[in-house]
Amino acid sequence: MAIALRRLLFGTPIPTARAKHERLPKLLALPVFASDALSSVAYATEEIMLVLVAAVPLMLDRAVPLSIGIAILLAIVAFSYRQTIHAYPMGGGAYRVAKENLGVYPGLVAGAALMIDYVLTVAVSIAAGVAAITSAVPATAGHNVWLCLLFIGLITVLNLRGVRESGVVFAVPTYLFVVSLVILIVAGLIRLANGAPPAPPPAIPIPEHATYPLTLFVLLRSFAAGCTALTGVEAVSDGVPAFRPPEARNASTTLVMLAVILISMFLGITFLAHGFHIQPDAPESDLPVVGGGAIHRQTLVSKLAQVVFGRSWFYYLIQTATAMILVLAANTAYADFPRLGSFLARDRFLPRQLTNIGDRLVFTNGIVLLGLLSALLVIAFGGDTHALLPLYAIGVFVSFTLSQSGMVMRWVRQRGKAWQRMALVNGIGAIATFVVLCILTVTKFVEGAYIVVLLIPMLVALFRSIERHYQQVRQALAIEPNSGFRPIKHTVVVLVPAMNQAVMQTLEYARSISADARAVYVEMDPAETAAFAERWTKYVGDEMPLVILESPYRSLVQPVLRYLDDVDAERHDDVVTVIIPEMVTPRWWQKLLHNQNGLMLKFSLLFKKGIVVTNVRYHLDT
Amino acid sequence: MAIALRRLLFGTPIPTARAKHERLPKLLALPVFASDALSSVAYATEEIMLVLVAAVPLMLDRAVPLSIGIAILLAIVAFSYRQTIHAYPMGGGAYRVAKENLGVYPGLVAGAALMIDYVLTVAVSIAAGVAAITSAVPATAGHNVWLCLLFIGLITVLNLRGVRESGVVFAVPTYLFVVSLVILIVAGLIRLANGAPPAPPPAIPIPEHATYPLTLFVLLRSFAAGCTALTGVEAVSDGVPAFRPPEARNASTTLVMLAVILISMFLGITFLAHGFHIQPDAPESDLPVVGGGAIHRQTLVSKLAQVVFGRSWFYYLIQTATAMILVLAANTAYADFPRLGSFLARDRFLPRQLTNIGDRLVFTNGIVLLGLLSALLVIAFGGDTHALLPLYAIGVFVSFTLSQSGMVMRWVRQRGKAWQRMALVNGIGAIATFVVLCILTVTKFVEGAYIVVLLIPMLVALFRSIERHYQQVRQALAIEPNSGFRPIKHTVVVLVPAMNQAVMQTLEYARSISADARAVYVEMDPAETAAFAERWTKYVGDEMPLVILESPYRSLVQPVLRYLDDVDAERHDDVVTVIIPEMVTPRWWQKLLHNQNGLMLKFSLLFKKGIVVTNVRYHLDT
Repeated sequence: MAIALRRLLFGTPIPTARAKHERLPKLLALPVFASDALSSVAYATEEIMLVLVAAVPLMLDRAVPLSIGIAILLAIVAFSYRQTIHAYPMGGGAYRVAKENLGVYPGLVAGAALMIDYVLTVAVSIAAGVAAITSAVPATAGHNVWLCLLFIGLITVLNLRGVRESGVVFAVPTYLFVVSLVILIVAGLIRLANGAPPAPPPAIPIPEHATYPLTLFVLLRSFAAGCTALTGVEAVSDGVPAFRPPEARNASTTLVMLAVILISMFLGITFLAHGFHIQPDAPESDLPVVGGGAIHRQTLVSKLAQVVFGRSWFYYLIQTATAMILVLAANTAYADFPRLGSFLARDRFLPRQLTNIGDRLVFTNGIVLLGLLSALLVIAFGGDTHALLPLYAIGVFVSFTLSQSGMVMRWVRQRGKAWQRMALVNGIGAIATFVVLCILTVTKFVEGAYIVVLLIPMLVALFRSIERHYQQVRQALAIEPNSGFRPIKHTVVVLVPAMNQAVMQTLEYARSISADARAVYVEMDPAETAAFAERWTKYVGDEMPLVILESPYRSLVQPVLRYLDDVDAERHDDVVTVIIPEMVTPRWWQKLLHNQNGLMLKFSLLFKKGIVVTNVRYHLDT
Repeated sequence: MAIALRRLLFGTPIPTARAKHERLPKLLALPVFASDALSSVAYATEEIMLVLVAAVPLMLDRAVPLSIGIAILLAIVAFSYRQTIHAYPMGGGAYRVAKENLGVYPGLVAGAALMIDYVLTVAVSIAAGVAAITSAVPATAGHNVWLCLLFIGLITVLNLRGVRESGVVFAVPTYLFVVSLVILIVAGLIRLANGAPPAPPPAIPIPEHATYPLTLFVLLRSFAAGCTALTGVEAVSDGVPAFRPPEARNASTTLVMLAVILISMFLGITFLAHGFHIQPDAPESDLPVVGGGAIHRQTLVSKLAQVVFGRSWFYYLIQTATAMILVLAANTAYADFPRLGSFLARDRFLPRQLTNIGDRLVFTNGIVLLGLLSALLVIAFGGDTHALLPLYAIGVFVSFTLSQSGMVMRWVRQRGKAWQRMALVNGIGAIATFVVLCILTVTKFVEGAYIVVLLIPMLVALFRSIERHYQQVRQALAIEPNSGFRPIKHTVVVLVPAMNQAVMQTLEYARSISADARAVYVEMDPAETAAFAERWTKYVGDEMPLVILESPYRSLVQPVLRYLDDVDAERHDDVVTVIIPEMVTPRWWQKLLHNQNGLMLKFSLLFKKGIVVTNVRYHLDT
């Protein structure tokens, strides 16, 4: 029955032979690799504005130049990554690039940063997707955490099934999102061209520090908040082998397409929000707690769509497409996290089980781990996108910086054709992303970035200690040079609880594996010993020595352990085999009618060296 | 650390040699065996009155003649049991008396009835004890269930420690209860002699059916409600061997003392309640649910004590003594239930584990079972004495009837000295208790008695099916007459996950126990197989055959199970030993770094016949 349920949930096993890569044409590859990057359009502008509005409510127009700055950064990163694609046609993830070109520690730092960021991708994207739903459907407001957990559960199960059929599944919502947002932007621009509406009074009451000057710090914080738009841009370079040949060229073209679409949409949304004087609602974590119902908060994109189209069917289409692409973005982490985990595990930095491929041809353990971690994160942060975002993007920029620096090192070492130009492009990328990383860390530090800053070195230390353990095990288990089969002398101790057919069978087995087999009887009730001894004499007699152990405290385990110590002391080079007869009953409840002494003894023997434990089972028919 | 905690809670082990009975003088034996019976004084009168007051509020004076009837019944039962004491000086519980004289089924019915009643004794006594506390301390009202569970937990732990020092521990509260209630009764009678107070208006509003005639049914229900006073009277006859010699005579005298005290106290309370026109509060289960705080309900004894002494220190002494004796009454079930359980288990009607004597010389499993069952009962009935009482007493009267009938059969069969008189006395007892049993069952049927009526045959059926299972096991395990050690041919299959020192050691072990040892390697990733095979050739070569199993679905277990079927089919009279190498890491978290394939395989092999499973463990030092 458990098997049937499993089949229903996760599908029937898939043979290894079917593990070949589906090659994607560019038009299908774009949605597969772009959903993570594009989905950030749903929240990046809002985050920029939230920082501005909190500091200087009347200076929202700074959002436009800031967005242009972010767009330029995005272009730099995209150009830089194009070179990685060409240099690593088999896939150039930051872990690999950094480890190969900069060394193990930079590689591990990149790996740790990415692992953290993948978990955050799931949490942030799902939270933002749920926000799109709760914006459109007020009835769902206040149930964010539950909705998030529902989606995470759903994606986890789908990924455990294996999402082979990915291409088309990704294409529909991604293009729907792109097309509907482009229509929104164009329609909005036309409306603006016909005369911009007057600025409404600020929705958020102007805080007391309203005269606070627009410091550089606020501008940088706002810029940092918008940098989440860059997350996911690296995805294409990780997945080059999934493209149709010529892989590198196609991947490179796709990356450029992605960058162009992302920049247009991001700038479009920011410009419209500015033009229509739309102000973001205060984030949930900042809202005063009001007894009773939850406050209905709308996302910026929801407000914009409402202004342009009203609550028409097209408004709901935009919200649906937004929610869908955000769920898809989370889904990409379900491919990336387990794959990176398996790379780290193959290099012995993570538990080996992360390399296990389940019966649906997916990294089962990595998927489950990601599901659990992101669910915990969503619970810890109350399913609030705004609260999660300060943690986000740092990992990505760490990996950007390390990856681009690695590329610079590579060009400098290889000194191939036009290496100076190559090194320059990646160098600019590395410097730009490093500067942004510093800005991110400083401006978001107290809001949550410190968690990531602490977590990365902790993870690196964990990786090293795991590797050290495997190293020690490998040394301990190294086959000694003078190996070969040596004869073993061994003593067999049979635990005899009573005289019956099951025990007789066990004694026969014991005798067959060693000439030095002894039966051990633990005396619980002296009155019963005599009857037992009589039956022993009758059925076994001198064929095997019988040892009767006293047990003044009526414990089975203690006397046996003590006797085993004695046996162990008798000879030096011995293996002691303890044979425990066990009864297997055909129905589970019958097991309750028999004592579990064997189980207890087995457990106690777990940590005793030089003991081999053998279970001889007797299967009852009734 | 777990051991230290265990020692702290339950004490250090006690050797078997200290298991001798403490012999009790009469003055100490009385409290040990009487607390159960005497404690019913705390609620019996109240129950009589609750039935009367619900039907005919103005006819409470019928409580006095009803109580006299119950007192007469009690005298009959006590006289009848005196004969049991003399006939069974080694202890004559109803299970034993009925089984010996009437047959197995009547014995099992008595056993089932008593097991149920012991659980109810705990639940009812603790609930009533908590009611005494909540009557005195209004702040505790509404927390009945938690208080009940607290007391049950406490008594369970104390009994797991073993309450050897019982005599004196029992004497103080029992005599305190007896003396303080006698003082209450005497003081009350003096007050009444100086002029009875006028009858107050009824506290409970007269229900609509106030003109309902005082039918025989109501009287009988009221009588049945009071019969709870008889529970526990049988305790003395169960424990004759605990008395100082001459055991039977001393036990018999103690029983008479108990009956006299119980009758006096019960009649005294009833007479006073009547004299002072005290009406019982409606039981909690009948109270209307009022939003907010719990209603403060007082027991009848609490009201009486308050009327006579006011809220003086003596009032609180009475309440304390009442609560204490009720807890003690529950405690007697902790001796009776596990003992009866062990008798039934020794006769194979209950799981054998109930005969296990723990390291504190008590029937550990029986104590834990009783604690769990009574806790469940308390939770199910909301810790309400009145709701539990309809289930109570039926089991006791079943056992009374069967026990006395058994005694009649015994006298008739033995035809010893004065057998007719003996048979007459027990016969009167049997008939009287049987009539009361019928009254109890009929009048309390819908209120809860049906549960017990259904449960007794179900338990008897369970006893029989358990016995049948043990019988079948015994037959299946009977040693065949032509036994003796036959040589076993056996095949050894070693699971080899890789080539290392742990595996080499396992292979050596395998070779040492059989000439036909084969290594089995499950191919998860074809790329790794070649490397493995090379190492195998280098270190083992031809010394042992290697079988490589394909696993198209990357499962370890399935191919191994299939191969074992093949091996099993090769020869007929074979035992197949599966050897699983295991690694034991010194720290628990390191275990997470190694796969649990061995564990999974062991579990899968659990139900496969003819397979011996051997674990060869390799202990890592680091």
